[in-house]
Amino acid sequence: MKLTCTQENLSKGLTVVGKSIGKDSTLPVLSNVLLTTDNKRLKLSTTNLEIGTSCLIGAKVEKEGKITVPAQLLSNYINNLPAEQINIEAKGTDLKISSGSYNANIKGIDSQEFPLIPKIEEKPFAKVSGKDLKTALSQIIFASANDESRPEIAGVYLKTDKSKIRLAATDSYRLAEKVVEVTAGAEEEVEMIVPISAMLELNRILSEQDEAVEIASSDNQVRFSFGDVELVSRLVEGQYPEYQRIIPKELETKAQVSNKELSTALRTSSFFSQKDVAEVVVKTKASQGVVEIIAESGEVGKNVTKVKAEKIEGGDREISFNPQYLLDCLLNIGTDKVSLMITADEKVGALKPIGAGEQDYVYIIMPIVKK
Amino acid sequence: MKLTCTQENLSKGLTVVGKSIGKDSTLPVLSNVLLTTDNKRLKLSTTNLEIGTSCLIGAKVEKEGKITVPAQLLSNYINNLPAEQINIEAKGTDLKISSGSYNANIKGIDSQEFPLIPKIEEKPFAKVSGKDLKTALSQIIFASANDESRPEIAGVYLKTDKSKIRLAATDSYRLAEKVVEVTAGAEEEVEMIVPISAMLELNRILSEQDEAVEIASSDNQVRFSFGDVELVSRLVEGQYPEYQRIIPKELETKAQVSNKELSTALRTSSFFSQKDVAEVVVKTKASQGVVEIIAESGEVGKNVTKVKAEKIEGGDREISFNPQYLLDCLLNIGTDKVSLMITADEKVGALKPIGAGEQDYVYIIMPIVKK
Repeated sequence: MKLTCTQENLSKGLTVVGKSIGKDSTLPVLSNVLLTTDNKRLKLSTTNLEIGTSCLIGAKVEKEGKITVPAQLLSNYINNLPAEQINIEAKGTDLKISSGSYNANIKGIDSQEFPLIPKIEEKPFAKVSGKDLKTALSQIIFASANDESRPEIAGVYLKTDKSKIRLAATDSYRLAEKVVEVTAGAEEEVEMIVPISAMLELNRILSEQDEAVEIASSDNQVRFSFGDVELVSRLVEGQYPEYQRIIPKELETKAQVSNKELSTALRTSSFFSQKDVAEVVVKTKASQGVVEIIAESGEVGKNVTKVKAEKIEGGDREISFNPQYLLDCLLNIGTDKVSLMITADEKVGALKPIGAGEQDYVYIIMPIVKK
Repeated sequence: MKLTCTQENLSKGLTVVGKSIGKDSTLPVLSNVLLTTDNKRLKLSTTNLEIGTSCLIGAKVEKEGKITVPAQLLSNYINNLPAEQINIEAKGTDLKISSGSYNANIKGIDSQEFPLIPKIEEKPFAKVSGKDLKTALSQIIFASANDESRPEIAGVYLKTDKSKIRLAATDSYRLAEKVVEVTAGAEEEVEMIVPISAMLELNRILSEQDEAVEIASSDNQVRFSFGDVELVSRLVEGQYPEYQRIIPKELETKAQVSNKELSTALRTSSFFSQKDVAEVVVKTKASQGVVEIIAESGEVGKNVTKVKAEKIEGGDREISFNPQYLLDCLLNIGTDKVSLMITADEKVGALKPIGAGEQDYVYIIMPIVKK
């Protein structure tokens, strides 16, 4: 293999594929990135056997070939080089890199040892805007369980629904659901659970540019492709909980508040929570036009913050939440104003954006029940 | 105690005193900040029994008094409040705080339990520019030992010298020395070792504004005062090593290089160092007008970077360093160009700034000697 490429392209490509590497030292090749010439381009691939990522970058290929070298080292090294042409040449399992006043020789591993990333031959079942998908993922992934003891909820549920994709995540204490319009496909009904690690990685590498993302699946694999990037992940087997039934039909009390004011009140209150159980009491007071956020611990003291509500509908309610669960959503909901809602029986709370995407997103949160 | 002050002043004051608190749970009052009314001001004080810090802020005092409350909690809380007037009132050992829509009650500890911070009655022995002192500290403190097994070098050596203060720090592998001009005093000869923790704290709170710092000492204590802030620290007992004799009389080879280029070369090379021993070989090559930085490990590979030298004097030399020791200095030396120097016997290296402060600073670094 012999080629030249720009430092910028190689650095960007390595950043895209750099996280889906294995940390298991029993198979050292998993911590390597596979470099393969592909016509007039260089393909970078990594895998941790669960997620595989690849990215194509422009290159001037003099001699075809393949090699694997430590991904982290190569990425660190290339990131530090000046923005100039980089010459790359494989000699046996060594990779020679030269650029300007830099000359390196990196020890690699034969490309034969690199595991195959599964190919998905099926046609994409849906195409969505990359920007919309990134927004949707940001709004829901924090609600997913992240412990492997319940793998079916340590993932994002994805279900096509006519011209829409419904995405949901829950850890059984809170639930986030977002509906994304597709730009093509989604005729056939598809349902799957994608591991949270793959969704976090997809969210990380989805560029801010609005590139279309094609989603395809076969057997127990899913592929997201956009631009020159592909991410393939195994799917979680099992049944996703029937979460729709915990979304209340009616959320009687609705208070319209500023996202920033509510967030500040919650953050401030959290300093007054008990060390072991973070808890705030939320009280709606329609006559005063405020939502009170109250935190108290025997050890620290007490804080009461009144958050002004632009509008309160429904009766006065009192409910206890983990403040972090509200903050996670407020940080990602994406609107300046939000609607805080409580059911008449004070057994479920919810947050919805006011303005953009009002109809497409809901966040359900279970109260802390006193023993 | 009853007073009002602004959120900005209280927040700034708590940031100044917030770090010199005790972490030892056997004396919980050490993690508290002492609030004392002082004429028309509010005094904030903290101590960890080694360092004591205090700061005066403007306040409208209605009723004199004293109270202590958890420093971290108060600081977190006040930082989150909007920039408005804050009302503070002590009720027994509780502190009531209200501001806008916030109302808190923080449980405190009686001020009688707060330890006395030593008073230094002696007149200051020197006065220096705060900006100069901050620059000097930044340029030397990283070279100090930080393990308590050799307390006399886990500190900064300070010696007055006619109208100058000489500051030095060493961990026995490298040594940094800086001379600061005094603006007043320094007639009498004073010599002391200030613990590194106090110097790090002083460096943190010395504002970027050029306030004069007065230094006074008595017995085994030193006080730095500037503006409305005071920091008192115990001194380290013992004899500072006679470091002057390790500063070479002659540094035969001198290469003028760009700080940025040398730093990048060192950082890049460090990826190729052995995991356990970070090491780079530095070679001066006068005929090529370059300094070569070479790193090699059997496991990872090899990198050679040529750093262009504007000027090289003296013969070609080769010496091995811990790259981090050079980087620590380059990050803090404060000039774009530096002089890299090596003795003729290749047993000592040095860095000096080129330009501002050229005569006032030297950094000595011991080579890695092959076994």
